Amino acid sequence: MNATWRYHNPVDVQFGSGALGYLGSHTGGRTVTVVTFPEARGLGLIARLRAILGTALVQVIDRTEPNPDVALLADLYQRFWSDGQAGEVLVAVGGGSVIDTAKTLMVGTAGGSFDALVALLAAGKPFAPDRVKPLIAVPTTAGTGSEVTPWATVWDRAAGRKYSLHLPETWPKAAIVDPDLCESLPAGPTRAAGLDALSHALESIWNVNANPVSDTHAVAAARTVIATLPALMQDLSNRELRRAMSLAALQAGLAFSNTKTALAHSISYEMTLQHGLPHGIACSFTLPMVLERACGIDPARDAVLARIFDGDLDRAPARLTDFIESIGVSTRFASYGVSDRDAARMVAEALEGVRGRNFIGARAARPAAVEPIA
Amino acid sequence: MNATWRYHNPVDVQFGSGALGYLGSHTGGRTVTVVTFPEARGLGLIARLRAILGTALVQVIDRTEPNPDVALLADLYQRFWSDGQAGEVLVAVGGGSVIDTAKTLMVGTAGGSFDALVALLAAGKPFAPDRVKPLIAVPTTAGTGSEVTPWATVWDRAAGRKYSLHLPETWPKAAIVDPDLCESLPAGPTRAAGLDALSHALESIWNVNANPVSDTHAVAAARTVIATLPALMQDLSNRELRRAMSLAALQAGLAFSNTKTALAHSISYEMTLQHGLPHGIACSFTLPMVLERACGIDPARDAVLARIFDGDLDRAPARLTDFIESIGVSTRFASYGVSDRDAARMVAEALEGVRGRNFIGARAARPAAVEPIA
Repeated sequence: MNATWRYHNPVDVQFGSGALGYLGSHTGGRTVTVVTFPEARGLGLIARLRAILGTALVQVIDRTEPNPDVALLADLYQRFWSDGQAGEVLVAVGGGSVIDTAKTLMVGTAGGSFDALVALLAAGKPFAPDRVKPLIAVPTTAGTGSEVTPWATVWDRAAGRKYSLHLPETWPKAAIVDPDLCESLPAGPTRAAGLDALSHALESIWNVNANPVSDTHAVAAARTVIATLPALMQDLSNRELRRAMSLAALQAGLAFSNTKTALAHSISYEMTLQHGLPHGIACSFTLPMVLERACGIDPARDAVLARIFDGDLDRAPARLTDFIESIGVSTRFASYGVSDRDAARMVAEALEGVRGRNFIGARAARPAAVEPIA
Repeated sequence: MNATWRYHNPVDVQFGSGALGYLGSHTGGRTVTVVTFPEARGLGLIARLRAILGTALVQVIDRTEPNPDVALLADLYQRFWSDGQAGEVLVAVGGGSVIDTAKTLMVGTAGGSFDALVALLAAGKPFAPDRVKPLIAVPTTAGTGSEVTPWATVWDRAAGRKYSLHLPETWPKAAIVDPDLCESLPAGPTRAAGLDALSHALESIWNVNANPVSDTHAVAAARTVIATLPALMQDLSNRELRRAMSLAALQAGLAFSNTKTALAHSISYEMTLQHGLPHGIACSFTLPMVLERACGIDPARDAVLARIFDGDLDRAPARLTDFIESIGVSTRFASYGVSDRDAARMVAEALEGVRGRNFIGARAARPAAVEPIA
């Protein structure tokens, strides 16, 4: 942890059962483009949004996809910025991929060209967008945290790579976290999203950018996920458990919004690109292994991690393994068709990645990184 | 606690030993008016600010006072807004009173008239200021929290009342919390500021506006104050203890920035106006009494309070009394020349005050409010 640190999260958060009803007070009479997922209409979500926003709702973009790819985004983006009828405000209603899609749309290049945006992202440097539309994020899963972060992941499967959008302008103006919106989420996405939140919390702790404010949020989030997710998997319509998971995902978001992620996410990108693993699983099945590597590197980090595991860090990796396996997710690379040798190579490469270098053990681990993973 | 709640704190926080060195990155080349306390020059603070800001530092206002009164503010305000050479940015370097003074200056009425501002404050309604200068707050005490709140208290001793300034525009743009700036603070103000932070933390918990995010910050803050302040009083130049108290004061600020204060602060205003008690003492000597009233009203609030006192809420009021008395502050009204009868009247009136009504026990306590305080 740095001696001097910074914490900043300007997102106006509205939380609770029925919070969606406050959407109108945040859009404030401006016209709205809703970005959402294809099933939203069938679930009655569009009708609810129309009831809340009335004629201010001028456009619905629901042709989104998981892990949004430049191939699809190019079309959505060019239509959005060339459409004189597009809303003044973007409201993203969905999981992380929907919110990330909306963040990509909010940043307007001079001519509305998506290629120009991708070129800026590929250059990897900050830039001043020519136009920005404000974003209000409404998560319908408990996991992403994207509602309280300024960044989005954009995939380029054809090129086998991904880009990060991250500008001061891409903070959502507000996040409306209504746990009731998660109630119809099936078991699989509920589990993946919950594990994503746990990964955000832990990755913000074993992180060179950690600070006491991010730690406070992360410990609360991790403890809640571990205490709540197994019960929720047995009782998906339990509103109190849904509320707890939405809060945990929000607090994990508040934590990693200021640290970014670390080794487990760095590993996840290849698991998603090459092995098609859903993000929430890809970024969490390695958490016990990363926890084991994190312990013992820095007494201050150990102390924060110990607060999650009731003070017993020795047993923590085993407890974390039990927790993840207990909800039906294997913590072994082999279960996903990855050999020990490939896994070792993947971890070694991940430690050199942008996110991997955030891991407190990145430097210490380098010599050992070629060892096969047990 | 409300079922639906909101948390929003847009202040960009820079924390740590040496954080003052980042001031220039926040002022970004704009000209600066520094608002500070009369002793700042003698302590070498102005010279340090000049070294950091160079010629951008165009004005120093150091004729400030504790609990700023309209009589002094009128003069500062009118000079500031009529001075064509005033800085584009306000940098407040001091305790709560200095930061509150700067918040008053940042809001410009059309003609630069302070009377117009006071009339708006007296009306007690939100208003759109004609002009606003951004504020960067640099606390030199560990207590106020004003660096991360949008409000200021302005006193009108002649009229025997106080006003609250509170606008969306009065959030500081940034807070630079450098614990080293507290190193020269004498014992008395160190204690009063530390108790002020404790009061902010506790008052945000027994508060009708409490929410899980404010609770998370408040519990961390209260535990740190109780664990740190007695040791710091014995070792005022201990930098690690100063750092812990600065963090606690910041986190207490992040908590009560979204809940406001409650009964102990409501009581404090009369103790300061009529009995001249410093704010930090006035708002904290009643904390054990208020804690006793808070316990048992709401199981959810009890659970949060119990996290501060290692799960034992029965002994909590006695432990809090011991803590406050151990650093030389009496928790009895009689010690401040207030009779039991006057104290009972004061508490009853405070429960009806704007802040008193935030207390979770305000409604429940009304019938009992005429009982003398034990």
